[in-house]
Amino acid sequence: MLSLEMSPLLTQLENNLMSQFANLFGLPSGSGGVMLSGGTLANLQALVVARNNKLKIKDGNVYSLLQQPVVFTSDVAHVSVVKSCMLMGIGSSNVVKVKSNQNAQMCVDDLILKIDEQIKLGNIPFAIVATAGTTITGSIDPLNEIANIAKRFNLWFHVDAIYGGALIFSVEHKILLNGIELADSISFNPQKWLYVAKTCSMVLFRDFSGMVDNFRITAPYMKDQEHFINLGEITVQGSKYAEVLKLWLSLLGLGISGYQQLILHCYVLRDVFVDKAACRKYLELATNPDTNVICFRIMNSDADQCDLLNEQLQSYLLRQCGFFVSMPKFKGQNWLRVVLINPFITDEIIDELFTKIDWFVQNLN
Amino acid sequence: MLSLEMSPLLTQLENNLMSQFANLFGLPSGSGGVMLSGGTLANLQALVVARNNKLKIKDGNVYSLLQQPVVFTSDVAHVSVVKSCMLMGIGSSNVVKVKSNQNAQMCVDDLILKIDEQIKLGNIPFAIVATAGTTITGSIDPLNEIANIAKRFNLWFHVDAIYGGALIFSVEHKILLNGIELADSISFNPQKWLYVAKTCSMVLFRDFSGMVDNFRITAPYMKDQEHFINLGEITVQGSKYAEVLKLWLSLLGLGISGYQQLILHCYVLRDVFVDKAACRKYLELATNPDTNVICFRIMNSDADQCDLLNEQLQSYLLRQCGFFVSMPKFKGQNWLRVVLINPFITDEIIDELFTKIDWFVQNLN
Repeated sequence: MLSLEMSPLLTQLENNLMSQFANLFGLPSGSGGVMLSGGTLANLQALVVARNNKLKIKDGNVYSLLQQPVVFTSDVAHVSVVKSCMLMGIGSSNVVKVKSNQNAQMCVDDLILKIDEQIKLGNIPFAIVATAGTTITGSIDPLNEIANIAKRFNLWFHVDAIYGGALIFSVEHKILLNGIELADSISFNPQKWLYVAKTCSMVLFRDFSGMVDNFRITAPYMKDQEHFINLGEITVQGSKYAEVLKLWLSLLGLGISGYQQLILHCYVLRDVFVDKAACRKYLELATNPDTNVICFRIMNSDADQCDLLNEQLQSYLLRQCGFFVSMPKFKGQNWLRVVLINPFITDEIIDELFTKIDWFVQNLN
Repeated sequence: MLSLEMSPLLTQLENNLMSQFANLFGLPSGSGGVMLSGGTLANLQALVVARNNKLKIKDGNVYSLLQQPVVFTSDVAHVSVVKSCMLMGIGSSNVVKVKSNQNAQMCVDDLILKIDEQIKLGNIPFAIVATAGTTITGSIDPLNEIANIAKRFNLWFHVDAIYGGALIFSVEHKILLNGIELADSISFNPQKWLYVAKTCSMVLFRDFSGMVDNFRITAPYMKDQEHFINLGEITVQGSKYAEVLKLWLSLLGLGISGYQQLILHCYVLRDVFVDKAACRKYLELATNPDTNVICFRIMNSDADQCDLLNEQLQSYLLRQCGFFVSMPKFKGQNWLRVVLINPFITDEIIDELFTKIDWFVQNLN
């Protein structure tokens, strides 16, 4: 997958399929992308291109800038935004965290406030990273409003749709992605909600040839060929796994309608789950879930006690009931997190989980 | 492979195996490393840690520096050094190319000259990247001498042993890696001369906990655990393929002695190949090959004619004889390149290749 010479078919397949995905996201003709081994690399490549494009530093020399560059993202965005800025020489502390609302979505008022603040400080904002499907609660930022703000301040608009990007296949819920068609770049992982085995990730660009101009480092041992550029020269990676093959075969097998049904089933399960949680007074939900990612916990007015109790519940569910529920930190506290993505989950399985949780709560001493 | 919670066995296996590899390279106790999807990412991680360590910018803020940072590598080093510096905000033009000698090895006199020049310019040298096994000719830089220079100027000493690192298993040729034990970091790809399927790469650090301090970006959704750090927090990637499993199984299957024999066989083939090339007056070798990578071509005093002739030979060998010989640019010209790595190559196959080349040359009009 390094070069057209070594991998002619897969290089062309990747090029074509990425253009099609860019179109599915609503990006115009001239858009396209590349595949990478994981979402962190996809976000990294998008932000490097944003930096080189907006700060006019094709050779990426941050030292020569006259003002400190800053990036905006919400306080619940994925850690890869901070990691990318550390890698890129922007500095992890120069990722400005915008407040999120009760549903873990970026507050656009605070975004404007933060941009103004940074401009007053003499820093140079160059990109906003919105999230479509946050890691902890699967929340989707108001993409349309953020796109407008990015346009107003002439900032690069990147959408981390690593998780939620799959909604392009959903007739019923695609509306949640409204505004993504205004993005300068989009990252999306088929290795998540498209059920493709890890690793399988992509980063798409509104202006593909602009990306190439702002990114490409040519390798003397690769031959140039018409139409298709060697993927090793236009991705963060050199050699990489043939991610595209798995994706293409999955699309051939399931088709858009197959994915549509799978995603719809996840939303049915979400509704079942949320109803069951809502009718139990001792439970609370972290957010009103936009997707099939749900965070909940046993309530307790004492914060430490609350964390401990939910840790014990997680351990009980894993050790004694065979349920794995992850336990992320959200707003500094422990929450239990389910991702209703397995197509073989049924109402009965959800019933059983809640029966076990009921038992645990009833038997607290 | 993201976190200890999701992948307890493989996380620990990777940690242990990387320590063992660090020891095989002669790094002291306290050394260790991580695995990545390809050599470019391994070099990137090494250079990011070098930057953060030597320039004392834990949050990686290149803008705040008072002098332009520069990196030194030879003019035949891998393109990933330049790509990494572009990504890192150092700037692709701030990779200072040190001259290589006739055997494509870094000239240490020119290295010292170039370092002095950069200091006089007011720039701040922070790392030297030596190569053990260059991409085009498999050449190995004089590691001991470069290590001494790095020490004298207090520079980070990284060895790109992506290809040649396999020589740690060779009793006869390990001597070529002398000095690698003085490296601050080493990148090595089992996906090459250890015959592990792509992707499989590692980056090793003399001071593992120092690497963690200079690199780690913590993720709130990962739990801290004793002894083992979540790999997602200390690698350029987040999610990644379970590279370690393939490597571990290969080592179980072949063992160190198996690799030793495989590598020895490659050197036997190299000697056969070089002898055959040397006794043909119409051929020339690009270098005296250090490893099993050999560049050669048909000589012709006219440069353009020479390039064309060798292009025609490559095409003839591929289209009519079933031999794939790659054609990199080396010192601005086309060369034919073979990598004698397939254990099923025999003297007879090499004979046949030369018979075809002889035929091609005899039938030139």
